[in-house]
Amino acid sequence: MQQADIGLIGLAVMGQNLVLNMNDHGYTVAVYNRTTAKVDDFMAGPAQGTEIIPTYSISQLVTSLKKPRRIMMMVKAGEVVDAFIEQLLPHLEPGDIIIDGGNSLYTDSERRMQMLTKKNVLFIGTGISGGEEGARKGPSIMPGGNPEAWPHVRDIFQAIAAKVDGVPCCDWVGEGGAGHFVKMVHNGIEYGDMQLICEAYDFMSRGLALDEEQIAGIFSDWNDGLLNSYLIEISAHIFATKDVDGTPLIRKILDSAGQKGTGKWTGINALELGIPLTLIAEAVFARCLSALKEERVRAAAVLSGPIPQIPVDPTPLIQNIHDALYGAKIISYTQGYMLMREAAKEYGWNLHYGSIALMWRGGCIIRSVFLDNIKQAFAVNPELDNLLLDDFFQKAIEQSQAGWRQATIKGIELGIPMPAIAAGLSYYDGYRSARLPANLLQAQRDYFGAHTYERIDKPRGEFFHTDWSGSGGKVSSSTYTV
Amino acid sequence: MQQADIGLIGLAVMGQNLVLNMNDHGYTVAVYNRTTAKVDDFMAGPAQGTEIIPTYSISQLVTSLKKPRRIMMMVKAGEVVDAFIEQLLPHLEPGDIIIDGGNSLYTDSERRMQMLTKKNVLFIGTGISGGEEGARKGPSIMPGGNPEAWPHVRDIFQAIAAKVDGVPCCDWVGEGGAGHFVKMVHNGIEYGDMQLICEAYDFMSRGLALDEEQIAGIFSDWNDGLLNSYLIEISAHIFATKDVDGTPLIRKILDSAGQKGTGKWTGINALELGIPLTLIAEAVFARCLSALKEERVRAAAVLSGPIPQIPVDPTPLIQNIHDALYGAKIISYTQGYMLMREAAKEYGWNLHYGSIALMWRGGCIIRSVFLDNIKQAFAVNPELDNLLLDDFFQKAIEQSQAGWRQATIKGIELGIPMPAIAAGLSYYDGYRSARLPANLLQAQRDYFGAHTYERIDKPRGEFFHTDWSGSGGKVSSSTYTV
Repeated sequence: MQQADIGLIGLAVMGQNLVLNMNDHGYTVAVYNRTTAKVDDFMAGPAQGTEIIPTYSISQLVTSLKKPRRIMMMVKAGEVVDAFIEQLLPHLEPGDIIIDGGNSLYTDSERRMQMLTKKNVLFIGTGISGGEEGARKGPSIMPGGNPEAWPHVRDIFQAIAAKVDGVPCCDWVGEGGAGHFVKMVHNGIEYGDMQLICEAYDFMSRGLALDEEQIAGIFSDWNDGLLNSYLIEISAHIFATKDVDGTPLIRKILDSAGQKGTGKWTGINALELGIPLTLIAEAVFARCLSALKEERVRAAAVLSGPIPQIPVDPTPLIQNIHDALYGAKIISYTQGYMLMREAAKEYGWNLHYGSIALMWRGGCIIRSVFLDNIKQAFAVNPELDNLLLDDFFQKAIEQSQAGWRQATIKGIELGIPMPAIAAGLSYYDGYRSARLPANLLQAQRDYFGAHTYERIDKPRGEFFHTDWSGSGGKVSSSTYTV
Repeated sequence: MQQADIGLIGLAVMGQNLVLNMNDHGYTVAVYNRTTAKVDDFMAGPAQGTEIIPTYSISQLVTSLKKPRRIMMMVKAGEVVDAFIEQLLPHLEPGDIIIDGGNSLYTDSERRMQMLTKKNVLFIGTGISGGEEGARKGPSIMPGGNPEAWPHVRDIFQAIAAKVDGVPCCDWVGEGGAGHFVKMVHNGIEYGDMQLICEAYDFMSRGLALDEEQIAGIFSDWNDGLLNSYLIEISAHIFATKDVDGTPLIRKILDSAGQKGTGKWTGINALELGIPLTLIAEAVFARCLSALKEERVRAAAVLSGPIPQIPVDPTPLIQNIHDALYGAKIISYTQGYMLMREAAKEYGWNLHYGSIALMWRGGCIIRSVFLDNIKQAFAVNPELDNLLLDDFFQKAIEQSQAGWRQATIKGIELGIPMPAIAAGLSYYDGYRSARLPANLLQAQRDYFGAHTYERIDKPRGEFFHTDWSGSGGKVSSSTYTV
């Protein structure tokens, strides 16, 4: 008894693989699953011949652990997490540690930490990315919560995490919900990256009439350059994968995408904090639109569009879409970092932006050379306001923008939707506009609602009202919050 | 005593004008304001010579009312509304009616109705649009809440509401928070309309080098055609308005836009319900970006873009931007109606879409001929799934799309951001795509997370998993919710 280093609840694919990973690194793990048959299946299957300890009840799980007990949950986010915490509490002692490694909403982690702190139980809410393979071989781990718990889990977390240049892709993120918040932004960025790649695929497939083999080759080439990343790499594999009948498997897959909610949360958080996270929002909405499959099929029969003219030589357009993907990717990460910066201000977190890029460099779904560039940018200037103002990214956009514009234009001409690529470009042109047409918007708001406006020839904070129609009163609306 | 037909709390501009409007229609209104000096100012000012009754305490307000008492609040949304409800309750009797006419979140109205129903007080949460002028001369009124209250307020609401072809722009929307929900969508659409007009202005100003007088003339022309609407009309007035020094006032207004939150709520609700409300979301984000004025000024100095080539003859491009505005507007309303349809399903409301268009035809900020076309579409087919599938709108898009595409392309070439116009076009091209590239997205999700996919050659609801990398397990992730 009391021999296991850590306990893990929840033996779905992520949980199983994390356990095996811990076992590989010399940790003794006790496992439990609500449906206990899964424990037996696991022990008879992947866990055969390991030091992993099966348990069949919460109390058995807890009593098998060394103190202070470390219990990690890999269960469905939401009420299930709260239910397991309730089940665990009667068995725990002060100083024991509960770790939630699921895709929990950061506000839930914040609440759970507060609740457990009162009971002298230390809580960690940690983001884990890398999917099936990452969990098995080394994921990216983003822990936050009660800082007192960190020294007790650091060794094991950093042991099982991915390493890049010998540095583990795991570091303390911050108090309360900070770990799950950073994971949420990671997932939002993942939504963006995936959508951008899908748009490039659609452009090459419908617009340039390239086949799966050609597209596999292009993604493979791209993976040797600036776009080198896990998602580009697996896209190349996907296009090269054949179905049992020898045709490309990708052709058989239904174009209706699911989502687990973290992309949606990122968009909601951006709206709440007032950060223009346009590209990720478009990526989330693109999934919603994809889900309306039957409606789209009906609409396609009646709604007109341009007839695509397949260009004779696709080569320059392939380079353009490459540049579009790269430019838009810079915007997506820029917006994600803007959101983290605002959240840190709002929630009182001291986020280390360079260290976050480091954690994402390996193990996780969005791992890429690109993240090295981001880490570099924050190494040069830890107070960097916006990624676009970093020399490297400024030049990168300068070099890619002509192709990016051409690809976007071509997509519009061909009638191929590229919502995220186009949104990224709109953002770029908006962000570099010293003057935007919001002066008209303010005039309209003052016209119909007496909302007042500021003037360019007066100090900020002085508000003016005009009786535009000549019939309005002199009463201005009470001040509004931006 | 007990002589007033209705009591009104909150004498900011909207409250004052509603009171005067009610007075014009023969209703006796008792008024109260927390800062009672405002009551005196009002009585000595706009209310002079009217039948309006000033009161200086909640109890005085309540005792001045006929039974069942009707008390309308025109106060800041949020805690202030709850505070006034708490203050009112001890003075009320069963059957009395509390009306919240502010910009409340629909979930708050839902909660308030439930709470007040238990106390036998009838609650109405009503959207009111039309701003200062609408409130005075006839707003659009969108009441929801306790249906038992409706007969008691119908006459007064329909009397003060705007009329179009003799029909009042006010009808019962539905239970609970339905009124404020529809108002929220109205405001989201308003955000979209305003942003689209701003983008057209920016295109004409920065892209075509037209001056304020020319732009005023163009908006004025547009107001005689398909785009005829209140917002286009006031935009023409705004561009024609001069500052005291004789220069166009619009030049002096700071391009940093505020928001009251209802556009943001619309975006959040769309994300929650999974509806691709891309255009309105871009409009909200455009306000967020406009607010980063100082950052944009800094960025403009270092970030490169194309050098705008002013075309010699702007005429065709003016027609293009007109068509872009019209096409994108159709998309914005289409998306707004999609959101209402989904909300009705989700929250159990029986929304009358044609009647909603009717309520918006007059009085409110988004009033336009366009809403007549929407009303028509639902008259022809009350079960219409999507506005784009209506004959009129299908043809309208057919006619405007060439210009819409050209304007969007020109904006990209010139480096002028048109996020909402471009998002509308992306949506249109996505919606009419029988096949989108989300098959790649599903393959990626299955590759890294064993999320499974559906196949085009198998029935919906059957899920498949491929061991893409050859190293993953056979364990698929637990089912996810779309």
